[in-house]
Amino acid sequence: MDSTTLLFHLRQTAPNTPLHTISIDYGQRHRIELDFAARLSDLAGAASHRVLPLDLTSIGGSPLTDPDLRIPASADDEQITTVVPFRNMLFVTLASACGETLGARDLYLSPVRDDYDAYRDCRREFYDSLEGTLRLGATRETDFRIHTPFVDHTKVDVVAMGLQLEVPYELTHTCYEGRRPACGICDACVERLHAFDANGVADPLDYENTPGGHS
Amino acid sequence: MDSTTLLFHLRQTAPNTPLHTISIDYGQRHRIELDFAARLSDLAGAASHRVLPLDLTSIGGSPLTDPDLRIPASADDEQITTVVPFRNMLFVTLASACGETLGARDLYLSPVRDDYDAYRDCRREFYDSLEGTLRLGATRETDFRIHTPFVDHTKVDVVAMGLQLEVPYELTHTCYEGRRPACGICDACVERLHAFDANGVADPLDYENTPGGHS
Repeated sequence: MDSTTLLFHLRQTAPNTPLHTISIDYGQRHRIELDFAARLSDLAGAASHRVLPLDLTSIGGSPLTDPDLRIPASADDEQITTVVPFRNMLFVTLASACGETLGARDLYLSPVRDDYDAYRDCRREFYDSLEGTLRLGATRETDFRIHTPFVDHTKVDVVAMGLQLEVPYELTHTCYEGRRPACGICDACVERLHAFDANGVADPLDYENTPGGHS
Repeated sequence: MDSTTLLFHLRQTAPNTPLHTISIDYGQRHRIELDFAARLSDLAGAASHRVLPLDLTSIGGSPLTDPDLRIPASADDEQITTVVPFRNMLFVTLASACGETLGARDLYLSPVRDDYDAYRDCRREFYDSLEGTLRLGATRETDFRIHTPFVDHTKVDVVAMGLQLEVPYELTHTCYEGRRPACGICDACVERLHAFDANGVADPLDYENTPGGHS
């Protein structure tokens, strides 16, 4: 939801800049998102879309990459157990490696303010540091820039923007369980449902459960 | 050669500390090194050894991961073309992710002074920055430390230390071409041969070619 909104936002604000999109196949339970990402990249007219393999299942530690661990319900307040260690750092570094071969220097990703609590690698402070490290580690001195335009915004703000941009949210995937219909219980589903609800709009996705039982 | 010397050095200086060794299968042409790394870890009594997959072939850009590109001869002075973008950064970040699940906070790797010219990600300045980024990106606040004890030493120094430690250099692999016998022409081979030569000792490996033709 967030990254798709970012893609359509960039398409509108920088219509003549080629956008190269990258998805990472990291062994996520919700790898169905990879198929949707390819379709959304096409719809947004991306110059290229690639799926990079990064098998994090052998590291484990998170129910997102270990099918034997349980995805916590949002109500359990255990989101920190879903952290995939250094996931975003690996993603951005891989994207930077692609940037070197593509000649791209501007990296965009979409952490939002709601992510801070459980995910330390969603804070701007982290990306500032990572940007400095990328500059030092690049093959040749290169000013990589990591753009996180939504980092001070909530998911409610993001959906508000996306509705204006007419983002095809029916093609986005959010549920950690990787299901269609979505589970409606994991934190990712609950936050998404809240973001639509706060905008007074129905989420176009189908859910197995919705909070409060009014499905 | 360098990382094996480091392993045996740590085994001697910290005999009671469990050592977990990690090899990365990144699609390198010289992936024969993975088999040797497993045997060397056993010999050094490592507490565990794991091989993590990290497919960098789809990123390309280096003859180390793209079989269609030519490995330059050392004499060509084109070592920068062998850089695999952000390879060491990805390696250390993956190792840190393992560190989280293993409860390990001290990461060791073996860049040496000879590596600086072509490889910016072998400088201590880079590892200082990376250490800060890892601390900010860890799941919970964690003082990861990246140790690079050989960073101010040459390969000649490293082999001198390894000879004293009786490192089984016949089980180490260096050649970028991934051959046994080694090519003797790539920069990795030439630097290795020089390091043994400067210590007045014959390299136990066989070579197809040796510099100056005195094979």
